Order: sequence, then C-alpha cells, then structure tokens
Amino acid sequence: MIKHLVVVGVGLIGGSFALDLKQHGQVERVTGIGRSRANLETALQLGIIDQIGDDLASVAASADLVLLAAPVGAMPDLFKQLAPQLQSSCIVTDVGSTKQDVIAAARAGLADRIAQYVPGHPIAGAETNGSAAARAGLYADKPLILTPLPENSVADVETVESLWRVCGARVARMDPALHDQIFAAVSHLPHLLAFALMDELAGRPLAETYFRYAGAGLRDATRIAGSHPEMWRDITLANRDALLNELDALVAKLKSVKALVAARDGAELEQVFARARQARTNWLQGKYNND
Amino acid sequence: MIKHLVVVGVGLIGGSFALDLKQHGQVERVTGIGRSRANLETALQLGIIDQIGDDLASVAASADLVLLAAPVGAMPDLFKQLAPQLQSSCIVTDVGSTKQDVIAAARAGLADRIAQYVPGHPIAGAETNGSAAARAGLYADKPLILTPLPENSVADVETVESLWRVCGARVARMDPALHDQIFAAVSHLPHLLAFALMDELAGRPLAETYFRYAGAGLRDATRIAGSHPEMWRDITLANRDALLNELDALVAKLKSVKALVAARDGAELEQVFARARQARTNWLQGKYNND
Repeated sequence: MIKHLVVVGVGLIGGSFALDLKQHGQVERVTGIGRSRANLETALQLGIIDQIGDDLASVAASADLVLLAAPVGAMPDLFKQLAPQLQSSCIVTDVGSTKQDVIAAARAGLADRIAQYVPGHPIAGAETNGSAAARAGLYADKPLILTPLPENSVADVETVESLWRVCGARVARMDPALHDQIFAAVSHLPHLLAFALMDELAGRPLAETYFRYAGAGLRDATRIAGSHPEMWRDITLANRDALLNELDALVAKLKSVKALVAARDGAELEQVFARARQARTNWLQGKYNND
Repeated sequence: MIKHLVVVGVGLIGGSFALDLKQHGQVERVTGIGRSRANLETALQLGIIDQIGDDLASVAASADLVLLAAPVGAMPDLFKQLAPQLQSSCIVTDVGSTKQDVIAAARAGLADRIAQYVPGHPIAGAETNGSAAARAGLYADKPLILTPLPENSVADVETVESLWRVCGARVARMDPALHDQIFAAVSHLPHLLAFALMDELAGRPLAETYFRYAGAGLRDATRIAGSHPEMWRDITLANRDALLNELDALVAKLKSVKALVAARDGAELEQVFARARQARTNWLQGKYNND
C-alpha cells in the first residue's frame, strides 16, 4: 500500500496509473503536479488525484512513490528538483518512452540516490492526452517494461513491478539499450514516418483536394501523427542515434521498393507485400507473445 | 431498376454494391463471377448474388450492368472477354483504384463500344476481402469518384451515379489524371509505406522481439499492410509514374527530417510534428469537405 503517490504529469499515462491504483486500493493519497493548472483541476474533479501540488520539491518529502510522467525532455530538471527532498524510503519511477537518456538524467540529478530510481515504460500510448483521457484499465494486458539499474534493490524493483501488475500490465525486464533499440523500430520510427507523411501531404498545393478524398487508410496510417509534438520532439532527440539508423534503414527500404516499381517488377513487389501482410498477421495472432 | 447485374469479383467492394442495390430494390437478379468458386458459393449463401456465372463471356449478353471489381491488372482481359457479347444497352463500370490505366484497357478491349464504359472508384477499401466481408451500408457517406469519358452519354453517367447514390455514396466527378495523382498521394503511397515498414521490421534479426513489444501505434500505422498483395501489386504498377514521384517526395521528406534529428533541431522538429498534427485535426474535423 502506497501512502502518498506523487504523479508528475497527470495525463493519459500518469492519470490512468493513479486511477488503477486507487480502484484497487493500493494508494491512500495522490498528489498531482504539472504545468497546466486547468489539467490538474480536471484531474481533481475526475478523482484521479486528491490534491494539487505546487511544485515537486515541496511535496517530494512526504512521498512514498513518485511517478514521473512528463515528456522525457523535462526529466533532467525533475530529478534535480527531487533530489534534495527525497526520503530514503521513497521509490522514484517513470514512464519515459526512452530509457538510456532518462537513466543518464537520473544519474546526474539524483547522484548518490540513484538506487531509488527504477526505470519503467508502459506500452499504452495514444494520440489523446491530458487528464481527461485517463481511464482505469488502460494497462490491462499491455506490456510494461522495466529496465532496472544495477544499483536498484530487488525489493524496490519488485514493488514497482507489483504496482504495474495491479494495473493489469504484462511486466517484462530488459536492458535499457535493447529497450531503446526496439522502440526506435516499433514506435519512434512509425511516429516520425506518420508525422513526415502528414506534413509532406499538407504542404502540397493540392493538399485540400487530397484530404477531401482521403479515406480510412490514410486516417489510420497517420493516427499517431495526432500525438503530442513536444512529447515526440523529446523522444526523438532522446533516442537520436537509434532513430538516425532507423531512418537510414527505412529510406534504403523505400529506395529498394522504388527500384521494383521503376523496373515494373510485379512479382517481387507482390512478394514484399505478401511478406509484410504475413508478418502482420503473425504478429496480431500473437505468434510473437512469449508470456 | 437493373434487371441483371453482373459482378466480376464478389469481394468486399463488389459484394457490398450488390447488397445495397438489392436492399434498395434496385436490382432484380445478380450474377457473380470470380476466380474462387468457394468465394462465390459463400456469396450465394449470403444472398449477395443469385447465381454463379461460369465466365464473363457467357453471361455478358444478358447483362444490363456489369461491375468490374477485380484487381486492376485483370481489367484488360475482362474488357476483351466482354466486348463481343456486350449489348448496346448494357453499361459497364468498375471500382478500380486507378483510372487512367483502366480507361486505357477499356479503350483497347471495348474499342468502338468504349462509350458504354463509365469509370468509377469508391473510396471504401479495407484490409479485409472476400465476399464474407461484404455488407450493406459500406458506402454510406463515403466518396465515390466518377471519371467520365468524353464518349459517355449523359444518361449512362447519371445511371451509374444514381446507383452509387442509392448506396449512400457522395459522388464526385473528376479528371482521371487528377484522380490518379490524388490517390497516389493519399492511398497508394501510404499503402507502399505500410508494406515497406512491415517488411523492413519483419526482416530484422530481432523481428520477433520487436513484434512482442510493438503496440497500437504500429498496429494502426500498418493496418493497410494487411491489404491484398496481388491487388496492390496491380495498383502499384498501374499508377507507377505518380507513385515514383510520391516515393521520391517522401524519401526527400524523410531525409529532411533526418537532418533535423542529426542536428538536434528540436524547435524545427516540433514545428513539423505540430503542422502534421494540425493538418490531421483539420482533415478529421471535415475542414476539407466541400459537399
């Protein structure tokens, strides 16, 4: 049981975590902290949080658990604010979409208190945001990845893991570098691609005509281009090296597809499409789930 | 009222058209033609068609309306089979995703009967296919584009238009070249992109790990990579020139995004993401609908 949970960034992710823990009686009191007072007022009205904190430093001293659910670019400052007030019994965790850079920020900000920080990443994003988007059950059957530090105590990692399990998440542990590599490929690259495609089309002289006739294919393919620009700026910069490699690989792939189109190589194009379709079918049928 | 409708390719598109016309009492009898006997049997059981035709030539003579709903690569042969049996009162229309090449195939195949062919394209695709996927109401409020030929009679174009309106479609007319340019951008490019992204990820040594942790973002971004490989091979080849330009434009866009990532230009990346998000919001809020 957490006596006092502090959630920094009460949006879809942070808010849903608080709601789940409340609904399962795992937390006594939740304080919300964030940049938008209006969003925090909404969270208060919706019962996601019990009180609004003025700043992290002032509430950190009484926290048992701090969840950092702000854009990853804000993490360095948050760790710095947190460090002087952090009680030795308090666990700090996060939901950042990149792990190596948040860990580096934690090491810089928390210094000799680094053992208290257990890095996490729930795979449950959406293009909606703000506390009004939060809901209990968001994490049910969704992957939650922990990338524990060598300094973490077994007990702290287990506490964080158990709380996410209460939310219904399927918890996995992995190396932070592998985490960042995987999510560059399956999340960050697709987001950049969706943003790039929408911005490319929207910048054309015929853009209005295009969108008048665009159908469900483009709508779904670009759903994630509705994601939060600041959040994705931060993720892009945080996972820069892996993303540069991914962009190179995708450009090379598109050039190879273009060569097939130019050569009118229907047989090979059909192979590419069929492999892609089969891989997606295998994935959605759960062929790759190992838990 | 159509006495005898012949549907070539009784899948999602052709089958749903037949169902809508039946439900609205606009057709007396529907004959289905296709390569898969099992699919036609299903269509018969589901009441989509009233009988199975052995081949186009044998049923064409009694048809009042022929709907060609086969992959666009099959169109040249279909027009050739159709020509000798086509009655002068019969209208031929199609649902091909490309128009210039289908028109060229019609001119070659139908020759001096070209006036009887009214080119069409409903914007209601999905990654599902086969007659089991067909449903009444599929076309409600969806765009349907006609690209009439100079040879078409006003009456024939109006007949085809009125049937699609019965299905609930919002009918627009445009030049075939503009049609192909628009759909290269908003449909064909996104499909190639989704196929390329899936095939790229699926070919990696870590593919199984990737898909184990991939979330809803990749799932939706690649929904259209579940589309039919043969159909998309044909569309890709049919709209080759426009697609080569689109692939060049997208590769250039991705390179410009990559340059921003490499330069750690967070401000400009955020601008790209924000413009993309705003364009998508405008689109989905119907800012570009003019009807």
